Amino acid sequence: MVTLALALTMGDPAGVGPELSLRAWQALSGDPKAPAFFYIGDGDLLAETGRRLGLEVPIARIDAPRQAPTTFVQALPVLHHPLAVAAEPGHLDPANAPAVLQSIESAVALTQAGEAAAVVTNPINKAALYDAGFRFPGHTEYLGHLAGLSQPTVMMLACDELRVVPVTLHVSLKEAIAQLDADTLAHACRVTHAYLRDHLGIAQPRLAVSGLNPHAGEQGAMGREELDMIAPTLEALRAEGLDLRGPLPADTMFHARARQNYDAALCMTHDQALIPIKTLAFDEGVNITMGLPFVRTSPDHGTALDIAGQGIARADSLLAALRMAGQLSAGGAAHG
Amino acid sequence: MVTLALALTMGDPAGVGPELSLRAWQALSGDPKAPAFFYIGDGDLLAETGRRLGLEVPIARIDAPRQAPTTFVQALPVLHHPLAVAAEPGHLDPANAPAVLQSIESAVALTQAGEAAAVVTNPINKAALYDAGFRFPGHTEYLGHLAGLSQPTVMMLACDELRVVPVTLHVSLKEAIAQLDADTLAHACRVTHAYLRDHLGIAQPRLAVSGLNPHAGEQGAMGREELDMIAPTLEALRAEGLDLRGPLPADTMFHARARQNYDAALCMTHDQALIPIKTLAFDEGVNITMGLPFVRTSPDHGTALDIAGQGIARADSLLAALRMAGQLSAGGAAHG
Repeated sequence: MVTLALALTMGDPAGVGPELSLRAWQALSGDPKAPAFFYIGDGDLLAETGRRLGLEVPIARIDAPRQAPTTFVQALPVLHHPLAVAAEPGHLDPANAPAVLQSIESAVALTQAGEAAAVVTNPINKAALYDAGFRFPGHTEYLGHLAGLSQPTVMMLACDELRVVPVTLHVSLKEAIAQLDADTLAHACRVTHAYLRDHLGIAQPRLAVSGLNPHAGEQGAMGREELDMIAPTLEALRAEGLDLRGPLPADTMFHARARQNYDAALCMTHDQALIPIKTLAFDEGVNITMGLPFVRTSPDHGTALDIAGQGIARADSLLAALRMAGQLSAGGAAHG
Repeated sequence: MVTLALALTMGDPAGVGPELSLRAWQALSGDPKAPAFFYIGDGDLLAETGRRLGLEVPIARIDAPRQAPTTFVQALPVLHHPLAVAAEPGHLDPANAPAVLQSIESAVALTQAGEAAAVVTNPINKAALYDAGFRFPGHTEYLGHLAGLSQPTVMMLACDELRVVPVTLHVSLKEAIAQLDADTLAHACRVTHAYLRDHLGIAQPRLAVSGLNPHAGEQGAMGREELDMIAPTLEALRAEGLDLRGPLPADTMFHARARQNYDAALCMTHDQALIPIKTLAFDEGVNITMGLPFVRTSPDHGTALDIAGQGIARADSLLAALRMAGQLSAGGAAHG
């Protein structure tokens, strides 16, 4: 039983965040099983977006997050933080960067104070923030900084059919091979294990781990990373009590029967992880940040400036992110 | 209207080839739209396999491939090549290597002589052949040698939903990055273009080409292979008249809507190509060898020695390979 609402950040006000937030309220407010959320951002921006796109969404300013669950059934609850300048869809304005960051800071502070169940973030645009002095590689690193983390977070992507964890991420393939080491792999496995246990209530999570090379190297015939690093690291983690399969050939890990054998798949490269999940569920993938001291999810897309304000952006991924955040924070409450 | 039958090789007699060949005849002999095939191998092995597994398949020895289409409706036509020693399921015997190779040689010779429509190969085991003096890296290279090819063949994997072409193949990921160059990429694009045109009757094939790095390098932020090599190579090929999209981020190429935009996807690494097709169609994938002077398909699995002779191997991929060979050879007849 979730008694707290989710904190939804504004994201970049020039992107698809405002319209998707309105659509998310339309989709979830009538569903008693769906989590309530409140929006941290400019209430006038939401009202104006609704008027322009003909979305009939009543907006209700609230003073405190605890009012949100009751308000949510009748109106979209907003913790109002005004923008510096009116946002124009598709046109980034660094003048609004402080408001974008303040929304994120507020969501984290309220969640850590026990006033909100989890943080769900609308997409931001790093370029606009950099122009205003932002100094983090991305959204997630900023959240880690706000939470005072010393270890890196680990990203999971989830849909109904599959959960994947890319062990290396947004670097060239050559650099990914160079970065991949025992510490990085072990950290990703441990964080994933703990997260599935604590937030999804899986007592002994089953992890499947891919190889780096085709056919997981085929006993050294096509690369030695499996023999030299991956297999020994998994062996050491098994001694810690983790349930791990692998290194497995990445190409045979993701069909329907194979997916029955694990709760999450850890992959050595970005594409090994992202290809199967985007092939299976392009619109409904959710990004989950593991390793933070609170639950954070986000839609698996960007600000989509090219279509912002046209009313054609799909809310599937934000909806999935909100539902997932509700599920993960309830799981965390139930399991400690 | 195909008037020639397909030549189906024996493959390793200790693998799943014999039982799958029997099941394939059961599935196709009653279907007037399915292609007829004849088996090149030991007729006694087939009869014995059928008896042991309770598969009621009449075997008919034929003298010439042209008898096969008529025979096929009543019995599985066999061009008899006896084994040196009786095959035991699951147990490789180098003594039978000459018969395995002779079956392949015969299939190629008959197809090149216009006596068979195409070559469909059952899986072989390289270890058993190496022990008997075989000196080729694999099945496909041997076929290229028999056909007197000077250029490398190009592999395509196909299922109902997708066709993929891995530009690099069975080497370590590090080596794949090193091997990937303009000549290799251009050769794969040209061969795929010609094949789709000549064998599938697609007048102007649309090819989608992936990047090597995450997000196709994101304008150089995550690797430069796209800017330095892939994009200029595609540009040069467009000037030759090829219809090419890319370099595209590999993770967003394979969902249902994206697949509507191309006839085949060329991928820089083994896993980029194999992950999506095996995720979508694990049992029904077909391996097509492009660049040979005849049509050759094969099931997308190995000898499966661990389950050979038990009657549990799935014939889906061999069936798909036979149907595909029929389609490709008819397309070839119709278009060139």
